[in-house]
Amino acid sequence: MVFDGKGTTLQLQQFELPELKPGELLVKISMTTLCGSDLHTFLGHRNTPCPTILGHEIIGTVAAFPSDGQATNGSGQPLSIGDRVTWSVAAHCGVCFFCQHNLPQKCEHLFKYGHEEIQPHHALSGGLADYCHLAVGTTVYKIPDVLDDRVACPANCATATVVAAMRAAGNCQDEVVLIQGSGMLGLTAAALASSNKARAVIVCDLDDARLQQAKQFGATHTVKVDSNSQAIQETIAETTDGRGVDLVLEMSGSADAMETGINLLRTGGRYIWIGAVSPTRPVSLSAESVVRKMLRIQGVHNYTPADLADALAFLESYHQKFPFESLVSKSFGLEQANTAFAEATECGSLRIAVCP
Amino acid sequence: MVFDGKGTTLQLQQFELPELKPGELLVKISMTTLCGSDLHTFLGHRNTPCPTILGHEIIGTVAAFPSDGQATNGSGQPLSIGDRVTWSVAAHCGVCFFCQHNLPQKCEHLFKYGHEEIQPHHALSGGLADYCHLAVGTTVYKIPDVLDDRVACPANCATATVVAAMRAAGNCQDEVVLIQGSGMLGLTAAALASSNKARAVIVCDLDDARLQQAKQFGATHTVKVDSNSQAIQETIAETTDGRGVDLVLEMSGSADAMETGINLLRTGGRYIWIGAVSPTRPVSLSAESVVRKMLRIQGVHNYTPADLADALAFLESYHQKFPFESLVSKSFGLEQANTAFAEATECGSLRIAVCP
Repeated sequence: MVFDGKGTTLQLQQFELPELKPGELLVKISMTTLCGSDLHTFLGHRNTPCPTILGHEIIGTVAAFPSDGQATNGSGQPLSIGDRVTWSVAAHCGVCFFCQHNLPQKCEHLFKYGHEEIQPHHALSGGLADYCHLAVGTTVYKIPDVLDDRVACPANCATATVVAAMRAAGNCQDEVVLIQGSGMLGLTAAALASSNKARAVIVCDLDDARLQQAKQFGATHTVKVDSNSQAIQETIAETTDGRGVDLVLEMSGSADAMETGINLLRTGGRYIWIGAVSPTRPVSLSAESVVRKMLRIQGVHNYTPADLADALAFLESYHQKFPFESLVSKSFGLEQANTAFAEATECGSLRIAVCP
Repeated sequence: MVFDGKGTTLQLQQFELPELKPGELLVKISMTTLCGSDLHTFLGHRNTPCPTILGHEIIGTVAAFPSDGQATNGSGQPLSIGDRVTWSVAAHCGVCFFCQHNLPQKCEHLFKYGHEEIQPHHALSGGLADYCHLAVGTTVYKIPDVLDDRVACPANCATATVVAAMRAAGNCQDEVVLIQGSGMLGLTAAALASSNKARAVIVCDLDDARLQQAKQFGATHTVKVDSNSQAIQETIAETTDGRGVDLVLEMSGSADAMETGINLLRTGGRYIWIGAVSPTRPVSLSAESVVRKMLRIQGVHNYTPADLADALAFLESYHQKFPFESLVSKSFGLEQANTAFAEATECGSLRIAVCP
């Protein structure tokens, strides 16, 4: 289902299956979930090279290897035809400056699923298709059998990104963690903080229904934020003896939230920014506060293959404790992809699936 | 020499030497250097409890122990009368939340030399005096014999703070480091970055004379900053293949510098803020840049005792390579402390010493 820019609908097109080169792989797609950034692109809020096949939260089964031999998964073990797999949202070269500095997600030759212009030799690069053609430099992982498709499908975007954020944040055991935004990332962060033994997990959002969901994902406190930030300050003062929280995870992308969050941190606190992937008004900070309170602000964008491995391990351990499958509310066939986007835009649910 | 608030001159007063309690120590002061923050307090730009004895960059010799026994230095080895020593700028309790979280400089019961109101039982808490009365919880270090007083004296403020900043920054070997501000902290940072094998050390400042000094302290490039930031951008583009610098150390405290610095970092770069210890206009940031470029902003204020130990080790190794003694331009007797402040304010030199 090909996307050709803002204001168009997806069109069904046929492509030849590729002849695989060494290191490539062909996957038969079983499910793609629509991520918030897919919606932004579909609605024209951000640009992507066109024509393209959208969708990057993808799972499927290994359908073909190159003629010269077998591929391996991220742990170096051989893959077999029919293995149920997920893979890093981007392929990286492994040799450029950023790859050599543990930033494969910023590779100078990045190939990002669901974000590439269709090329004659590489058309099938997105999730809204029957097959996906994996490029050299893609790290592939087998999906644990116990994981439902709906749980595993967002792993290579939402879950792995939150794992990267938690890694950047450092150990949060016994800490008080504030999560701003109770969407897919925020709920996943609540579950991760809870599984990492945070003493309290405070989730704030504008939406009551999402805050209710947060309670199922490990939130010990939920706070509705509005023009009056009194409620959140009171909750934090009670929970931290007035010191402020140890860690804030910003998943909303709101400049207001970022300015509020800085003031809710304790001295020595850490602030991880993940949500702001679209332009916002400038965020205004007191540099003296950052210095005297010895705050750390860390931006996190995407993740490394190791984060995806950890994301799968986390889901394998905690899929019965937190109802991740409930976040994928509906499923559509591939030819209904336009309806799937309409549903995702209108219904406010966190994930809609497309299953070829 | 007692300070009693903005607009007053220091007055000579006599105090009884204290009766030392267990864990305390009496030091005969040999030199105190006037730090920028002493000047700010003296000029009334910031408040301090009064009456007080200013001065926290202090060295001296051990003059007396409590009657119940010997004190030890920071490595646990016994101190002797006459040992030449420096000590952490603040005493900490070791048991409060912040002490338990490796932030002794933010101790809930902090006792900070040169910043305490004179008390009947503890009058001698600053450097502009013949003696200093060290409180329980002060980490004391012997000064290596090879170090000139002028080199050792700023160690427990300027040098240790920059060591803390470099520790927060992480390894800078083979990296391109930008230092904003070529004062005492900036020059020390240039020397530390150089000794840590940075590939390039770029120092920028408004002042040509200070930039000349930076070349003696390991700067490989110096750039005069003015309304036009073109020069710094060109130097960085040439030095980093257009990527941006790996690490920026902000020592100037200027909001303009902080906004510029963010844009000079490469993806994955680190930005250490140290200079902004006074109020500035708010700093305006693009959150999307922080997230997409995965930047880290870290505030650093003061240091831990381990940083002071490392500062002394650094000075011991590099005192012949970098002319730290030249940064202390003049010396005055204790009774000339008012003249010393006038000189420090007017002459623009980095350190003026007072030697009782």
